[in-house]
Amino acid sequence: MFSHECQTRVRYAETDQMGYLYYGNYATYYEVGRAEMIRSLGLTYQQMEDEYGILMPVMSLQMRFVRPAHYDELITIQTNLRRMPQKDIVFHHELFNPKGKLVNGGSVKLCFVDQKTNKTVPAPSFLTDKLRPYFE
Amino acid sequence: MFSHECQTRVRYAETDQMGYLYYGNYATYYEVGRAEMIRSLGLTYQQMEDEYGILMPVMSLQMRFVRPAHYDELITIQTNLRRMPQKDIVFHHELFNPKGKLVNGGSVKLCFVDQKTNKTVPAPSFLTDKLRPYFE
Amino acid sequence: MFSHECQTRVRYAETDQMGYLYYGNYATYYEVGRAEMIRSLGLTYQQMEDEYGILMPVMSLQMRFVRPAHYDELITIQTNLRRMPQKDIVFHHELFNPKGKLVNGGSVKLCFVDQKTNKTVPAPSFLTDKLRPYFE
Amino acid sequence: MFSHECQTRVRYAETDQMGYLYYGNYATYYEVGRAEMIRSLGLTYQQMEDEYGILMPVMSLQMRFVRPAHYDELITIQTNLRRMPQKDIVFHHELFNPKGKLVNGGSVKLCFVDQKTNKTVPAPSFLTDKLRPYFE
Repeated sequence: MFSHECQTRVRYAETDQMGYLYYGNYATYYEVGRAEMIRSLGLTYQQMEDEYGILMPVMSLQMRFVRPAHYDELITIQTNLRRMPQKDIVFHHELFNPKGKLVNGGSVKLCFVDQKTNKTVPAPSFLTDKLRPYFE
Repeated sequence: MFSHECQTRVRYAETDQMGYLYYGNYATYYEVGRAEMIRSLGLTYQQMEDEYGILMPVMSLQMRFVRPAHYDELITIQTNLRRMPQKDIVFHHELFNPKGKLVNGGSVKLCFVDQKTNKTVPAPSFLTDKLRPYFE
Repeated sequence: MFSHECQTRVRYAETDQMGYLYYGNYATYYEVGRAEMIRSLGLTYQQMEDEYGILMPVMSLQMRFVRPAHYDELITIQTNLRRMPQKDIVFHHELFNPKGKLVNGGSVKLCFVDQKTNKTVPAPSFLTDKLRPYFE
Repeated sequence: MFSHECQTRVRYAETDQMGYLYYGNYATYYEVGRAEMIRSLGLTYQQMEDEYGILMPVMSLQMRFVRPAHYDELITIQTNLRRMPQKDIVFHHELFNPKGKLVNGGSVKLCFVDQKTNKTVPAPSFLTDKLRPYFE
């Protein structure tokens, strides 16, 4: 398993009139979580697009909302890879509020698309080479 | 079953640098779908909050992304209730592009919260009374 | 002068915990206003990008907030061109709530960029030809 | 003058199909800038709402866009108060990309509203007391 943790603070822009982090904005927090996980490997998602021509469109998303997050709360985003990416990659996320209480949990499955051919490809080696040590 | 259909056009603000409708914005389209379905019953979600003191926080969300939606495409949002709401309500959504191709499908489960007590309550009768004819 | 009017409904996603349309979302409403104005001329902004290779980045924005807009309100977006576009184009917007009260007013200045050269160019003739009759 | 600086990274969600930070999202960056400036004074905007019952709706906004910001760039938000707030408060912002180049500059004027009376009030002393030393 490969795990990563980062934090982000709930913006006013992201709240709704219920006073909660709007439910659609969790997908953005998941994006932040996986981008920072990839950065922690010494890669960036931008590099994957620019240098390797690999796009990562989202195939599916599922989340459950446990308790609301509120404006200005510093949210901890835990991101886990439970298995080596093969034809797709699944990021598991758990979000915690400043009291350490679970706010939201879920997962996102993405695939790898070669920009030149616009076809899906298996997880590229520049990524799997970095990840392999964590799964041995 | 109770079904409803409405349309919304993809805004530039909603695209990302892949040139697609950003995956997090589908949750907003689902929101539009269920708000318009409720309006078609002669109710509004705002009324439910203001007049009846009922909030509807989201409990879970799942979606699969079939093909990208693009800027300026007029997206058809089909919203279905497959069963009468009881302690929760599940909206099923399918989004279609202007060529009639499925873009995205998924569902959202919400519960009913009484603002006064901040406790969950069963589906309120002002809603179930409107829906019952469709499930008989 | 060339004028256009369209409507959009405030989404829950767009509100903030003050219960208002978040101030940053007005820029999106301005975008909707100018896209629909261009469509009313028999063009689309997407066509300008795809067929003519013209991008329209925003140069400046100014707005004043007169009164709040609220969830589910149907907002009327009035868009005006006060003069023929030359090296730039200025859209003036006024937003009204369902009671006809002014919510917000402002303007956006954009320029025209040729995607091939990445240089600014004067207002393209496919646009000015459509607009000229309104300014004679 | 009172100055503050913080940073935020451009999210994929915030880009558009031009590959730029969408112009409407700068308002959110301005929000982050002023929230962090207030936090640096030992206050939070949330506290102002909760403990003091003071809301700060935006009255006007103006910005100019100098060059595009791109996905994953770490943007430096400089926020300045040029004069003591009195009946309103004006935040001046300049945003810089990782190369230190100016991306965007502008200002936001907000007023102070007492939640109890829903009337505008002068800048509250819990704020001006903190700021006065910087303007002497």
